[in-house]
Amino acid sequence: MSITPVTRTFTDRHIGVSDPADVETMLARLGYTSLDELVDTAVPAAIRRPDALQIPAGLSEEEILAHLRELADRNVVKTQMIGQGFYGTFTPPVIRRNVLESPAWYTAYTPYQPEISQGRLEALLNFQTMVADLTGLAVANASMLDESSATAEAVLLMRRANKAAPATAKTVLDANLFPQTISVVRGRAEALGFEVEVADLGAGLPEGDLSGIVLQQPGDNGAVVDHAAVIAAAKERGAMVTVVADLLALTLITPPGEQGADVAVGNTQRFGVPLFFGGPHAAYLAIRAGLERSLPGRLVGVSKDSAGAPAYRLALQTREQHIRREKATSNICTAQALLAITASMYAVYHGADGLRGIAERTHAHARTLANALTDAGIPIASESFFDTVFATVPGRAAEIVARAADAGINLRLVDADTVGVSADETTADATIDAVATAFGAEVRERVRAGDFGFAAELTRTSDFLTHPIFHSIRSETQMLRYLRRLADRDLALDRTMIPLGSCTMKLNSTAEMESISWPEFAGIHPYVPAEQSRGWRDLIAELERRLVEITGYAGISLQPNSGAQGEYAGLLAIRGYHRANGDLQRDVCLIPASAHGTNAASAVLAGMRVVMVQNTETGTIDLVDLREKIAAHRDALAAIMITYPSTYGVYDADVRDVCDLVHEAGGQVYIDGANMNALVGLAQPGRFGGDVSHLNLHKTFAIPHGGGGPGVGPIGVAEHLLPYVPNDPTGSVSVSEGVPVVATLFGSAGVLPISYAYIAMMGGDGLTQATRIALLNANYIAARLSESFPVLYTGNRGLVAHECILDLRELTARSGVTAEDVAKRLIDFGFHAPTLAFPVPGTLMVEPTESEDLGELERFIEAMITIRAEIDQVIAGDFSIEDSPLRGAPHTAAVAVASDWDRAYPREQAVYPVAVLRTDKYFPPVGRIDNAHGDRNLVCSCPPLEAFAE
Amino acid sequence: MSITPVTRTFTDRHIGVSDPADVETMLARLGYTSLDELVDTAVPAAIRRPDALQIPAGLSEEEILAHLRELADRNVVKTQMIGQGFYGTFTPPVIRRNVLESPAWYTAYTPYQPEISQGRLEALLNFQTMVADLTGLAVANASMLDESSATAEAVLLMRRANKAAPATAKTVLDANLFPQTISVVRGRAEALGFEVEVADLGAGLPEGDLSGIVLQQPGDNGAVVDHAAVIAAAKERGAMVTVVADLLALTLITPPGEQGADVAVGNTQRFGVPLFFGGPHAAYLAIRAGLERSLPGRLVGVSKDSAGAPAYRLALQTREQHIRREKATSNICTAQALLAITASMYAVYHGADGLRGIAERTHAHARTLANALTDAGIPIASESFFDTVFATVPGRAAEIVARAADAGINLRLVDADTVGVSADETTADATIDAVATAFGAEVRERVRAGDFGFAAELTRTSDFLTHPIFHSIRSETQMLRYLRRLADRDLALDRTMIPLGSCTMKLNSTAEMESISWPEFAGIHPYVPAEQSRGWRDLIAELERRLVEITGYAGISLQPNSGAQGEYAGLLAIRGYHRANGDLQRDVCLIPASAHGTNAASAVLAGMRVVMVQNTETGTIDLVDLREKIAAHRDALAAIMITYPSTYGVYDADVRDVCDLVHEAGGQVYIDGANMNALVGLAQPGRFGGDVSHLNLHKTFAIPHGGGGPGVGPIGVAEHLLPYVPNDPTGSVSVSEGVPVVATLFGSAGVLPISYAYIAMMGGDGLTQATRIALLNANYIAARLSESFPVLYTGNRGLVAHECILDLRELTARSGVTAEDVAKRLIDFGFHAPTLAFPVPGTLMVEPTESEDLGELERFIEAMITIRAEIDQVIAGDFSIEDSPLRGAPHTAAVAVASDWDRAYPREQAVYPVAVLRTDKYFPPVGRIDNAHGDRNLVCSCPPLEAFAE
Repeated sequence: MSITPVTRTFTDRHIGVSDPADVETMLARLGYTSLDELVDTAVPAAIRRPDALQIPAGLSEEEILAHLRELADRNVVKTQMIGQGFYGTFTPPVIRRNVLESPAWYTAYTPYQPEISQGRLEALLNFQTMVADLTGLAVANASMLDESSATAEAVLLMRRANKAAPATAKTVLDANLFPQTISVVRGRAEALGFEVEVADLGAGLPEGDLSGIVLQQPGDNGAVVDHAAVIAAAKERGAMVTVVADLLALTLITPPGEQGADVAVGNTQRFGVPLFFGGPHAAYLAIRAGLERSLPGRLVGVSKDSAGAPAYRLALQTREQHIRREKATSNICTAQALLAITASMYAVYHGADGLRGIAERTHAHARTLANALTDAGIPIASESFFDTVFATVPGRAAEIVARAADAGINLRLVDADTVGVSADETTADATIDAVATAFGAEVRERVRAGDFGFAAELTRTSDFLTHPIFHSIRSETQMLRYLRRLADRDLALDRTMIPLGSCTMKLNSTAEMESISWPEFAGIHPYVPAEQSRGWRDLIAELERRLVEITGYAGISLQPNSGAQGEYAGLLAIRGYHRANGDLQRDVCLIPASAHGTNAASAVLAGMRVVMVQNTETGTIDLVDLREKIAAHRDALAAIMITYPSTYGVYDADVRDVCDLVHEAGGQVYIDGANMNALVGLAQPGRFGGDVSHLNLHKTFAIPHGGGGPGVGPIGVAEHLLPYVPNDPTGSVSVSEGVPVVATLFGSAGVLPISYAYIAMMGGDGLTQATRIALLNANYIAARLSESFPVLYTGNRGLVAHECILDLRELTARSGVTAEDVAKRLIDFGFHAPTLAFPVPGTLMVEPTESEDLGELERFIEAMITIRAEIDQVIAGDFSIEDSPLRGAPHTAAVAVASDWDRAYPREQAVYPVAVLRTDKYFPPVGRIDNAHGDRNLVCSCPPLEAFAE
Repeated sequence: MSITPVTRTFTDRHIGVSDPADVETMLARLGYTSLDELVDTAVPAAIRRPDALQIPAGLSEEEILAHLRELADRNVVKTQMIGQGFYGTFTPPVIRRNVLESPAWYTAYTPYQPEISQGRLEALLNFQTMVADLTGLAVANASMLDESSATAEAVLLMRRANKAAPATAKTVLDANLFPQTISVVRGRAEALGFEVEVADLGAGLPEGDLSGIVLQQPGDNGAVVDHAAVIAAAKERGAMVTVVADLLALTLITPPGEQGADVAVGNTQRFGVPLFFGGPHAAYLAIRAGLERSLPGRLVGVSKDSAGAPAYRLALQTREQHIRREKATSNICTAQALLAITASMYAVYHGADGLRGIAERTHAHARTLANALTDAGIPIASESFFDTVFATVPGRAAEIVARAADAGINLRLVDADTVGVSADETTADATIDAVATAFGAEVRERVRAGDFGFAAELTRTSDFLTHPIFHSIRSETQMLRYLRRLADRDLALDRTMIPLGSCTMKLNSTAEMESISWPEFAGIHPYVPAEQSRGWRDLIAELERRLVEITGYAGISLQPNSGAQGEYAGLLAIRGYHRANGDLQRDVCLIPASAHGTNAASAVLAGMRVVMVQNTETGTIDLVDLREKIAAHRDALAAIMITYPSTYGVYDADVRDVCDLVHEAGGQVYIDGANMNALVGLAQPGRFGGDVSHLNLHKTFAIPHGGGGPGVGPIGVAEHLLPYVPNDPTGSVSVSEGVPVVATLFGSAGVLPISYAYIAMMGGDGLTQATRIALLNANYIAARLSESFPVLYTGNRGLVAHECILDLRELTARSGVTAEDVAKRLIDFGFHAPTLAFPVPGTLMVEPTESEDLGELERFIEAMITIRAEIDQVIAGDFSIEDSPLRGAPHTAAVAVASDWDRAYPREQAVYPVAVLRTDKYFPPVGRIDNAHGDRNLVCSCPPLEAFAE
């Protein structure tokens, strides 16, 4: 016991309303005398956990940093030459500090509100341009979760797009793909019931109908092969073609697009993103022209704003799961924005010549090694390679790998007779010397850069990264200012509350963030021997224990690297369970109308049929309809997916009944953890009816949204589902009967210290208090705003959970002012909009989280009340909706200072609707963006500079 | 030899113009065919070094980080309980990342342009308020360099302000001051020739006339003593009183202001600033009302802007050396802004109750230890203490200190019989237990906080930190947003070129900055045994060798923690040399009219008489006048201080003659290194005539300006001056016959890795190329702008050195547009102004540095040409000067969007004078500030919130 408690714990720093006087003020407004009373009223007794969270008292920031340092020191950092999709790279320090470590970038949300996201949209457009250029294809999206799952998405894309091929047509994977890629694609195919064959495509195409084929350049064994012939043959057979390609290699080698491929995918990790023990990294997916509407994931495009100026925004959103639900192109809704931005800035900083130089040096190092091995009589897999050499050393592989490890270098132990060595940007002459020595060979002469060791006809001749942005930033000063300029265009948590319902934009504290940059965490390759990753494994095991305690499940899998992947993995666990029980026919997934669109899309990916269940007028699941649907699909019932508290922002008192009904019919209950922030410490989904849940560590557990990723979506499962959680994609660890969802056992491991630190610093009491204050804040906003905007759904005694839906529909009918107008007008007040039109069109869903303080809540309330007054002005006829500041919003500085001001309201009302803005005003860089224009005129790479003239 | 050179070295990242095509374009404009030709023309052959810099080729960012990691690992980090003015503390991570590690804060310049500095001015005003509150005094300045030199400044202040005391009156230092403080004050007194006596003031005041006395609370031995009686007695004797006080202790103990002290000084390091091996830290100096005009250093005050709104700016600048020269209150022109801001944010974040809690815990730990020692029969120096216990252990001190060190804890070895132990914020129960064990004692019971171990009448009863800013920010989210909001109000290098002549605002690269936060550097106490600071000492020794090679001197002292301290130390070396030669009468220092005001102020502090030397019309030193002044003062001649290239921005071809003339007369040559950026690799001041120079590591060697500090001002000296460089203030290392200038042997050691990394990454060739491009950039600007604004001084063939003076005087005469108008108008273009009115009133001095790229230079040139066109509009009568956008500048957003716009130019001209601003516009938060109003109505602490109403 210490001599006296500290004045303020981390919990007090994390929680915005920590002053008891503020709590009292707010409770008084709500008519409660204690927080307990409020919580006990809002949260149904039936689901409450009886005890307190069994998590020790919170550590201080200093204690957690010391503890993480200790864990980090249990990892062993060696020079990583394992390759297999993950390579050493240098993150330019200016990018590390000003992107990866900058709150302006990492606390930003997904750019669904494009007017306040122009900075990160430009960065992502740079990413798309970079990928399209390097792959030689027309369009690339704004990143994928990882290379393996991106390959799986490409396979599905080919199946969707190749309408000529029969449904039974198979997909053929070249045998020279990375094992983890084959493993993940096979898992997807198994769930969806289509055939995947693995074959040596160099020996010709297999018989039968082909949907598509997948090649890899360079191959798993490092071979750089001319794919032109097999691609042509595949096309002749009506098959589409995907190439998994290394972008660095493509600076030297003919890109897949120029060889006729339809799709290219791969990882951009080696463009300056740390190894992170396997993730998060930004994978990419690029397509030839014509496939745009089949493209999964986010796509940034160029449109124009209200003044006609070019403006970026997400294009073709109608493809996405939040709109198309089970008909979406994919269930993916998170990208890897922060990492894609990092990779794009690496390309901006190095330019085409810089990247080519890195590739040439990498290649020369690999050739030097290959020569040394050959000189020593050691055969290598291929004479044509880029960075990776597979050496044949019968019976000696383990010994050589061990010898290299003793010299501080990790090689790839392929099998007992084969060792793989991958050179990279960080490889030095001395590294190659040491590797040669480990093989008993010797470097006699170094190959110089520019002299290529692969077929001359494969040498890339086309230009890339020709846009000025890849030529104009060479000095660190320029890069620093470019990063600042882009960041300044955006609104992130470092400037304002982001009251996005369902997204839980809480504090991402520095103490949580700091350790992820430490080389002892960031520098570990995902496939190092376990004894080198003991710190990681200890951290992960402890995090799993904490999440078990929080959720009440029997076990946790941290492999899914997004919420959508978590849903998919959770449903696969259910599927695996039914199949193991012989219930092969159970394939119906019940989903309430109120669910996230992702739920439906995930169910389809897991091979299930979606059946909708109605909600009642009060927002709860309609038990009558539920009983009917269960009855109609009793034998086929696989699962129900519900969100709790529901997406309507209320605790449904019937939830146990819902679970019981489904269980009685033999179904499993999937509880979507998106709203876990309203449960932690109060209730455990694993105890009130759930068989499986995914959590969004990037919501409830403080991982930042990163401007649209990374996400982490671990699943918790009940005892009986434990055998079916995702297994190891490399097959090197026997984990379970499940299927892998991504490339590495622990998914986005690199950001797990954030959640680990959050839980450790909050402690059981702090986590619970966070939930309580989240409820208080949401109810306070609901109560304060209810006179201005009706709150659509409420639960017991009119209380909401951790968020509330403000219903604009009646006001829209009376005034013409839409929820979107309100969202855009909030920008003029310096706010990011609440969630728009989800789960109910014509509404705004507000979630303040526990991290906001009373002052910020009041600032938001003032803004909303001011907006309501403007709506009243429209109703009163002071101005028409078209001429109102609501429709005119957001107002740029350029519009506000233009000499010709002909609007029906004064300039001051436009930009200073409340006085406090006069001191610190955010001006959006563009006015309201025309989405339809952009989708009609699709431009998804950097526009020429002339577009911005005048 | 590597297999192929990297495409871009760090030099290419540091230097803005690295593309040969850009160099060629610029040379063509200047009429040169090669950079060599330009450099050879501009730089007199007489001073050129014959060889290239003997510094190895530059390392990459990765290599320097690995190398620094190796150096860091040579330091040993233990729990630091040595005290003696330096204490363990926790920097809140949110402050570390968003202030100390944020380019927006650390790349900012001193807030001489207040309109673009409101953020850091507010932070510094918070600092002043914090210090004034805690010390119980009326006014505090914006920080001092370190506690010891601040005490010396206080002593000088008392001598200036105590006009009643005779000139022979002595200053009495209490014997219980830190030894380094006594040592530094004695050095100052020795140079100025006044008497300092050290006495036990607890035993009564000494006889004789007293100028002032200095007490310390708590004392060196930790004792907390009631000073009321001795202060009253001193006042009765006509003496003024300074108390060196620990701010954390003052949260519990009656502050000096309430006991009648006139001045308080001390260190704010323990408010969240790392130990940094001794510095940089922000010291403070506070005064009672009435002493404002005697205050040294920078003072932030409140005034109003053109719209009447409250606005911050530096107050009473007429006290400062850049205006008053040898009559200034001090030679100090650097503060420790970045550290003062850090300390102020620590106070903002913790608030009064938080600070008191930290103090109470610290105190309780010390009492627990004291009880354990007493129980074990070990006498302690005083029963009344705050955090420090002196234990009497006859003959056993070394053994106990060694035992504690083995347990990972550093104690203070006071002498063979005495061990000092200081508790702090980081002290844990286990630490105290381990310390007790080292003494052979045992903790039986822990003292709980709130139970004080000093006299009850010393318990503080007054409130402090009552201003709302110290109550409103408690959550990390609030702090993050506050820091962002303040940073956004300011313009720093991360957004724009800062073309400040003489200030060399070059890139502060991330790779240079990163390592200073590493605990293995930042966590070392300055007085640890040498074997624990081997990494530091190795780094410092190597940096010294590099600086020797660059300057051509025989040795370097890194102790001076600012340029002004360097000047003072360099002049003391000259003084010491003359005295050692028996030339006691040599006390005249020749200073050209063009010199920095600091030169004159420093000469006075070093006990010299200043004699001005005229400059010729072309800006060179007037050799005729120089000969006359030498003749007039031949026997008394001590030194000449010149800047090279001169402050007029030209290489004076006569410099060797100047040096020879002075040397012939027995004088020494001090070459001010402010313009060293124009010499590195081309010429060595130690070889072309200098006997001593100081360097500004925060100019030429990439240490950031930090918004007004830290600075580092090492001196290089010729062989014959080596014995007279500053010695060790603690007396523990025998260094030389010099006197110490600051509290620790290596001054601002904590930031030396920045310059070390800069030199190592640039290498000899890179450093030289930086100088060459700095010349190119300055000459390019001079040439491009010369048609719009005459360049005042030029050297050979019309070339300037690394900066140029634009002469506005004729245009001012014709139009009324002043240089200040141009400076303020540049803000509307998003630029920080060039140096205003120095060295010539009515001019602007422009220094682009090598880090700016051609695009940024062109942006500046376009702005200046556009401004010239506006001046022409005034001349043409399009509008009067009063009604012009020049006088109206800078334009806030609030002014620009006001409905009533009655200016003679359109709004667009006001804020978008050039098109590129429409995309990314910086709006100053305030309009032009009324300096005179602020000085007439001096307010130097946080104004009440009502001041900002409407």
